[in-house]
Amino acid sequence: MKTIVILGSTGSIGTNTLDIVDRFPTEFRVAGLTAGSNDALLETQIRRFKPRIVALSDPSAATRLRQRCLDLSVEILAGQEGLVQVASATEADLVVSAIVGGAGLVPTLAAIRSKKHIALANKEPMVMAGKLMQEEARRHGIRIFPVDSEHSAIFQSLEGHRITDVRRVILTASGGALWTLTKDELQDVSAERALQHPNWKMGAKITIDSATLMNKGLEVVEARWLFDIPESRIDVMIHRESIVHSLVEYEDRSMIAQLGLPDMRTPISYAMRYPERLPLDLPSLDLTEIGTLTFCKPDHDRFPCLDLGYESLKIGGTMPAAMNAANEVAVEAFLQGGIRFTDISDIIRSTMLAHSAREVENIEAALDADRWAREKAESLVHALPR
Amino acid sequence: MKTIVILGSTGSIGTNTLDIVDRFPTEFRVAGLTAGSNDALLETQIRRFKPRIVALSDPSAATRLRQRCLDLSVEILAGQEGLVQVASATEADLVVSAIVGGAGLVPTLAAIRSKKHIALANKEPMVMAGKLMQEEARRHGIRIFPVDSEHSAIFQSLEGHRITDVRRVILTASGGALWTLTKDELQDVSAERALQHPNWKMGAKITIDSATLMNKGLEVVEARWLFDIPESRIDVMIHRESIVHSLVEYEDRSMIAQLGLPDMRTPISYAMRYPERLPLDLPSLDLTEIGTLTFCKPDHDRFPCLDLGYESLKIGGTMPAAMNAANEVAVEAFLQGGIRFTDISDIIRSTMLAHSAREVENIEAALDADRWAREKAESLVHALPR
Repeated sequence: MKTIVILGSTGSIGTNTLDIVDRFPTEFRVAGLTAGSNDALLETQIRRFKPRIVALSDPSAATRLRQRCLDLSVEILAGQEGLVQVASATEADLVVSAIVGGAGLVPTLAAIRSKKHIALANKEPMVMAGKLMQEEARRHGIRIFPVDSEHSAIFQSLEGHRITDVRRVILTASGGALWTLTKDELQDVSAERALQHPNWKMGAKITIDSATLMNKGLEVVEARWLFDIPESRIDVMIHRESIVHSLVEYEDRSMIAQLGLPDMRTPISYAMRYPERLPLDLPSLDLTEIGTLTFCKPDHDRFPCLDLGYESLKIGGTMPAAMNAANEVAVEAFLQGGIRFTDISDIIRSTMLAHSAREVENIEAALDADRWAREKAESLVHALPR
Repeated sequence: MKTIVILGSTGSIGTNTLDIVDRFPTEFRVAGLTAGSNDALLETQIRRFKPRIVALSDPSAATRLRQRCLDLSVEILAGQEGLVQVASATEADLVVSAIVGGAGLVPTLAAIRSKKHIALANKEPMVMAGKLMQEEARRHGIRIFPVDSEHSAIFQSLEGHRITDVRRVILTASGGALWTLTKDELQDVSAERALQHPNWKMGAKITIDSATLMNKGLEVVEARWLFDIPESRIDVMIHRESIVHSLVEYEDRSMIAQLGLPDMRTPISYAMRYPERLPLDLPSLDLTEIGTLTFCKPDHDRFPCLDLGYESLKIGGTMPAAMNAANEVAVEAFLQGGIRFTDISDIIRSTMLAHSAREVENIEAALDADRWAREKAESLVHALPR
């Protein structure tokens, strides 16, 4: 039996992870849970999975949760220190890191330093401090298993083959909700429209990232560090159907790919139970029913965020962290109706241009760049004509 | 450096294998070659690759070859005994088994018994005596690496994953040259037309097998023994583009697939150098250039040979050997213009119906069934109205 901690248990990945625990109660035990501010759902999860310790990053939500759980012996912490404590202090084999955005970095690093294997669902830790994360993972003798469907696909396509034989890694991208829109149409698109992802049901932030292709830009950075592959060997391909989750090309021109219906429970369970697979009672992929799979090149003109991802890696150091922070600010502003869709990439680019990248020697360097870029991006958002 | 023997060096697989040796002269040394009757090409190969020993199954061709090679020290043998001697007596790490049809069985088994790893390109040994072949391989501590593009794809898709987690193996089939023809049109199709394979340039026998789908029927039998998977877990799917070479579905509904442009040098080199991959300077698969991959179910009505493959496994014992022999006779008759395309499946089915299957306890049982079925199929061919 594996003991797990879930950072971000009330989100999409978190609830899917608990669904797997539910299906395989003899395989997993939940030791700790953390969430942002959803004390109602966390209470339900506490009563169902009986963790010893939980935390909410929002202190007032933590206060509410303590009220809700007066009859329970669960320890309830608050704030980032609370998250870090759940991530590190708890006895656990595996920490599922599924906090949305940059907030996941510190708790995930704390989990690594306390020698827990990581099932990594949030890309930001790898984007903000990928090199550092991998160095820490090596130092503490733990493994980081990707949960993102694309990186899980690459991970699965690398298993049993030699990393030295890899020629290219090819990330697939659905193209998001706005793939068919013209440049002009993209200018005036609403947040509601941009949130209509064709294949995956995900959180709002990642759905917008998918529509801008920034999601793929972030994934390129993530892949670079997860698999220690230079960006020149990472390609991106549009695949509208999201069936081929990603591919690896080897030196002999053989390609290995991982395919499946879009359901996060498959990559989550693989990371949770690696190298074994759980007999998930999910619909089988029937390619004859789907009939056709299509592939095309990304459009760098309409969706400039993908190139920003590559650019951030070429510059290196804190640049990916700055890019990520600017993106978070810009996406939030777009969701709130404060900026246009096409402003997102402009704000990220302007922030990157203004950023002086330096080495990520420690977590503070990444967090400093994150803070700086957030402020810069905020000022850019406010400078835009309403 | 690996020392190799090629059984069937003048055929399509044989020449491709030697092309790889040519590209990587420091990786491989050719110790022995065998062919059927093409003494001219074998002479060229002898002068280029300098094997110590060769054999031709046609004795008069062997006599001609001896004349051609008077200036060389190569040992030239003839007949099946010659083939067996090259397969077994030579010092070699790997025997590439690429003889077309049932003639490959005895030499391949001889190679296994002399403790050489096998790169298996001809399906017939596995079809005729798969269980026996695997038992012998286990007994002599050698491995059988598939070369067939579909089985190599499955082999590559199984590497690094647990065989106990496999849910299904899915063989892809191009559908062959006649996939779009109606049942009526199939009746009168010419051999010339049936030989126009859409994707692969192969020998005549296998190209007709591809058009009848018997090739896939044989591959189902081969997969059953190569991977020790019951036929109920083996599926077949039509994939016209021959890009996805085959797939494995695991218990968590994750599918791993191997893809590539149709070039036999990729699976051949993988079998030759397993688990390493050779940096083959071949065109890369660009899915964005191909654009669309299609998948559909096989048509059991127009192409009944696929079901015969499954049927032969359900009955078991010598039935696959009988089916294979009847197919060889029927395809040869079709190529000679003696029977119609649709007669091929009728002759195989009638031969199978007349065959009393027994256990393949030894090689003779398989060879007896092979002989019996050939005679039966011949008589059925001759009984047809001209």
